[in-house]
Amino acid sequence: MLTLDQLAQIINAELSGDPQAVVHRAQAFEQAEAGDVTFAETVAYRARVNQSAATAIIVGSRIENATCNLLIAANPKLAFARAVQALHATAYEPTGVSRDLIVGEGVTLGLDLSIHSRVTIGRNSVIGHRVTLHPGVVIGDDCRIGDDTVIHANVAIYSRCEIGQRVIIHAGTVIGADGFGFVPDEAGRQVKLLQLGRVRIEDDCEIGAGCAIDRGGFGDTVLRRGVKLDNLIQVGHNCDIGEDTVVAALTGFSGGTKVGRGCVIAGQVGTNQHITIGDRVTVTGQAGVTKNTRAGAVVAGTPAQDYNAWRRAQVLYSKLPELADRVKQLEKIIRDAGLNADAATGDVE
Amino acid sequence: MLTLDQLAQIINAELSGDPQAVVHRAQAFEQAEAGDVTFAETVAYRARVNQSAATAIIVGSRIENATCNLLIAANPKLAFARAVQALHATAYEPTGVSRDLIVGEGVTLGLDLSIHSRVTIGRNSVIGHRVTLHPGVVIGDDCRIGDDTVIHANVAIYSRCEIGQRVIIHAGTVIGADGFGFVPDEAGRQVKLLQLGRVRIEDDCEIGAGCAIDRGGFGDTVLRRGVKLDNLIQVGHNCDIGEDTVVAALTGFSGGTKVGRGCVIAGQVGTNQHITIGDRVTVTGQAGVTKNTRAGAVVAGTPAQDYNAWRRAQVLYSKLPELADRVKQLEKIIRDAGLNADAATGDVE
Amino acid sequence: MLTLDQLAQIINAELSGDPQAVVHRAQAFEQAEAGDVTFAETVAYRARVNQSAATAIIVGSRIENATCNLLIAANPKLAFARAVQALHATAYEPTGVSRDLIVGEGVTLGLDLSIHSRVTIGRNSVIGHRVTLHPGVVIGDDCRIGDDTVIHANVAIYSRCEIGQRVIIHAGTVIGADGFGFVPDEAGRQVKLLQLGRVRIEDDCEIGAGCAIDRGGFGDTVLRRGVKLDNLIQVGHNCDIGEDTVVAALTGFSGGTKVGRGCVIAGQVGTNQHITIGDRVTVTGQAGVTKNTRAGAVVAGTPAQDYNAWRRAQVLYSKLPELADRVKQLEKIIRDAGLNADAATGDVE
Repeated sequence: MLTLDQLAQIINAELSGDPQAVVHRAQAFEQAEAGDVTFAETVAYRARVNQSAATAIIVGSRIENATCNLLIAANPKLAFARAVQALHATAYEPTGVSRDLIVGEGVTLGLDLSIHSRVTIGRNSVIGHRVTLHPGVVIGDDCRIGDDTVIHANVAIYSRCEIGQRVIIHAGTVIGADGFGFVPDEAGRQVKLLQLGRVRIEDDCEIGAGCAIDRGGFGDTVLRRGVKLDNLIQVGHNCDIGEDTVVAALTGFSGGTKVGRGCVIAGQVGTNQHITIGDRVTVTGQAGVTKNTRAGAVVAGTPAQDYNAWRRAQVLYSKLPELADRVKQLEKIIRDAGLNADAATGDVE
Repeated sequence: MLTLDQLAQIINAELSGDPQAVVHRAQAFEQAEAGDVTFAETVAYRARVNQSAATAIIVGSRIENATCNLLIAANPKLAFARAVQALHATAYEPTGVSRDLIVGEGVTLGLDLSIHSRVTIGRNSVIGHRVTLHPGVVIGDDCRIGDDTVIHANVAIYSRCEIGQRVIIHAGTVIGADGFGFVPDEAGRQVKLLQLGRVRIEDDCEIGAGCAIDRGGFGDTVLRRGVKLDNLIQVGHNCDIGEDTVVAALTGFSGGTKVGRGCVIAGQVGTNQHITIGDRVTVTGQAGVTKNTRAGAVVAGTPAQDYNAWRRAQVLYSKLPELADRVKQLEKIIRDAGLNADAATGDVE
Repeated sequence: MLTLDQLAQIINAELSGDPQAVVHRAQAFEQAEAGDVTFAETVAYRARVNQSAATAIIVGSRIENATCNLLIAANPKLAFARAVQALHATAYEPTGVSRDLIVGEGVTLGLDLSIHSRVTIGRNSVIGHRVTLHPGVVIGDDCRIGDDTVIHANVAIYSRCEIGQRVIIHAGTVIGADGFGFVPDEAGRQVKLLQLGRVRIEDDCEIGAGCAIDRGGFGDTVLRRGVKLDNLIQVGHNCDIGEDTVVAALTGFSGGTKVGRGCVIAGQVGTNQHITIGDRVTVTGQAGVTKNTRAGAVVAGTPAQDYNAWRRAQVLYSKLPELADRVKQLEKIIRDAGLNADAATGDVE
C-alpha cells in the first residue's frame, strides 16, 4: 500500500492530484477499480481516464480536463512496470533445503536457500546464496548457479554450465544438451561431432518455459547480461546473444549465430548458421535471417530484407493477379496495334 | 467385443450385412483383418472394400455390389472415432495415491485417485475425484484440478492455475509460467512487468506434449471448453482460445490473442499481439496472422490474407520470372517501334 | 594423448610432418594451441595454417609452403569428427542402479547399468545392458530400451514404446504421447480418435531436447536407424523418418509424413499430412512441404518448390516495386501514343 506521493517518487512521475490517496494494487485499464493504479497506454484509454474508477492513472503527458489523479511520466509503460513491482513484488524468504535433496560429492551450497523437494545436483556443483530450485530440477556435475537465481520445476541443466545471478529459468527448459553436429561418413551414416563446450548464462537473464540452449561444440554458448527469452526457443551451439536482447517464442538460432545488444527478435524467427546480427536490430515475426545484418536494421521476410522494402513488395505481391492482368492487357494492345507478331502471348494465369 | 448390431446402434449407423458378426478391434484400412472394424475414408478405399478382410467397414453411403458388412453413417469418420472408443476405451480404475506423494499444507484430495510416484503438490491446492497424476508432475500452490483429469509425466503447473474436468495434459507441458513482458529502462535494461494473472483451462480440453501456456499479466489466460492443442504450442499471456478450437503443433499465439470458437489453426502459425480471430476461422500452416480476422474466414500466408487470393498470388509468384520476361519483351517492342526513347530499360533479372 | 602417427591411422589421413608429435586435445581453429589438433574448414583458415599454434591441422588437400604438421584427409570434416572422438570420447563406466529406483512388476534390468536417482519405470518394461537413465526419467509400461542407450533428465516415454541400441535422447523430450486426432461431432465438439499405436526408434538415433514424438493412431511412428533430430521437433502420429536423415530444430512433421533416407531437413520446416518425401531430399529452412517430393530434390519456400526456381522468384519478388513501375511506364507510353484509350491505368502502389 502506497500513497500517490510515495508512488510518484518511486516511479519518478509527476503527480497531478491527491498526494495522500492510497493505492494497494496495479491493474489493467479495463479492470481497474478504486484503490488501483493503472496505465492509459493508448489514445483511446487516454480519452477515457475520467470514466475509470482507478485511484491513479499513469500517463505520458498531461490531459486537459482530467478529473482523476494522474501520474505523469516520460516513459509511462516503464513507470507502470515499476509501479507493479512496488506494489506486488514480494521480498525473498528462504524456505530452506528439502531433506530429500540428492547431491553429489563436493557440492557447495550457499546460504538462505529455497531448495524444494525432488531436486538433484551433481558432483562439485556450486549453488549460490538465496537460490530457489523448484521440484524436479536436475543440475549436472561442475555447474555454478549464481546468487538469487530462480530455477523452476523440471528444468534440466547438463554438466559444466554456468548460470549467473538473478537469473530466472522457467519450467521444462533444458540447458547444455549437445549441439547438433554430425558429419556423414563414407556410407552416409552420421558421425557425431562431440560437443565439448559449455553454456554460460550471465546475470539478469530470464529464460522462458520449454527452451533448449545447447552447449558449445568447442567454446561456449553465451547469453549475455539481461537477455530475455520467451518460451520454446532454440539456441544452437556457440550462439552468442547480446545484452538486453529480447526474443519471442518459437524462435530458433542456428549454431554460431551472433546477435548484438538490445535487439528485438519476434516470434518464430530463424537464423542461418554463423551469421552476425548487429546491435539494436529488429527482426519481425517468422522472418528467416540468412546473412549478416547491420546494426539498427529492421528486417522482415524469408530471406530477411529491409522491412520497408519487404512491406512494399508484400503489398505488390498481394496484387500480383492485377499486375499480371495489366501485362496481358499491354500485350493485347501491342498485338492489336500490329507492333510485333512475335510478342509473348503466354497467359500466366 | 461387439456384434455389428450393437456397434451400429452405438455409432448410429445403418448396418448392411450380418448383425451377429463380431468385431473386437478397430484398425486402419490397410491393416484390417478378420474381427476388425475399419473405415473407408477415401474413394480409393471405397473401391477396395470387397478386398478387405475386415469384418465390417464404416462408409458414408451405400456401395453397389459390396459383399462385405458395411456400417453406413452420415459422418463416417465420426462413426469410426466412436467405434474405436467403443472397442478400445478402458474403464477408469484408480491405482491409489503413491506413498511418496509430497503435498503442502491445506491440500484437498478427491476420491478414487491415481497419483503415481514422485508427484509434488503445493499448498492449498484442490485435486478432484478420479484424477490421474503421472510421475514427475509438479503442481504449485492454490491450484484446482477438476474431476477425471489426466496429467502426464513431468508436467509443471505453476501456482493459482485452474484446470477443469476431463482435461488431458500431455507430458512435459508447462502451465502458468510468467508471460513475456518487459519494458526497457533509461539505460536499455529490460524491466520485468510482473505477471499477476492466472491460467484457466476449462473442461474437456486436451493439451499436447511440451506446450507452454503462460499466465496472464493481469487477468487470465483462458482455454475454453473443448480446446485441443497439439504439441509444442505457445500460448502467450492473456490469450483467450474459444470453445472446440483445434490448434496444430508449433503454433504460437502472441500475448492477448483472442481466438473464436470452432477454429482450425494449422501448424507453425503465428499471431500478432492483441488481435481477434473470429469463430470458425481456418488458418493454414505457417501463416502469420497480423490483424483481426472475420468469422468464417480462411486465411494463408504472412501477413495472412484470404486463402484464395493468396493461392492466386502464390501461383503467379512462382511464375514471376516469366512475367518479368514478358515485361522485358514489351519494353523491347516499344523501343523497337520508336515509341519512347525514355522507357525504362532496367533488367530485373 | 596420441602421436600424429597414431592419429593419422585412426582418422585415415596422410601425415605431412612429425609422426612423433603428440596431441591431447581437439579444438576449433581460432582457439587451437600447442598440443591441439584442429581443422582448417575454409579457404580463409587454410591461408592461415602457418599462423596457428596447433600441433596438427586437418586439411582436405596439401598446402604449399605449410610449415606445420598437416593431416590430409579426403573428407577433412569427417576426419576431424573422428579425431575429436579419438581424443575425447570416454569409455562407458557404469554407475550402478540408484537405490531409489521405482520399478513396476515384471521389469527386466540389464547388466552394467547407470540408473541415476529419481527414475521411474512401469510394468513389464525391459531395460538393456549398459543403459544410462538420468534423473527424472519416466518410462511407462511395456517399453523396451536397447543396449548402450542414454536417456537424459526428465525424458518421458509413454507405454509400449521401443527404443533401439546406442540411442541418445536429450532432456525433456516426450516419446509416445497421443497423436493429434479429433473429429467434430454433430454439435461441433471434438471427439478423440484414440491413439492405439506405438513409437519405434531404431538403433543409433539421436533426439534433441524438448522434442515430441507422438505414438501412431494405428500402427507405429518410426524413426529409422541413424535418424538425428535437433531440439524442439514435432513428429506427428504415424510419421516414418528414413535412415540417416537429419532434421534441424523446430521442424514439425504432420501426421503420416514419410521421409526418405539421407534427407537434410533444415529448421522450422513444416510438412502436410500424409505426404512422401523421397530419399536424399534437402529442405531449406522454414519451407512448407505440401506435396510429395521426388528423391534428390532441393526445395524451398511455402508451398515448397524447386530451390533454384524459388531463388529466382525470390530475387524478382524483392524487385516487385521496380517491375510494377516498369509496367506503369509501359502503360503511360501506350496511352501517350494513343494506342488504346481503354488500357488499364490502375496504380498497384
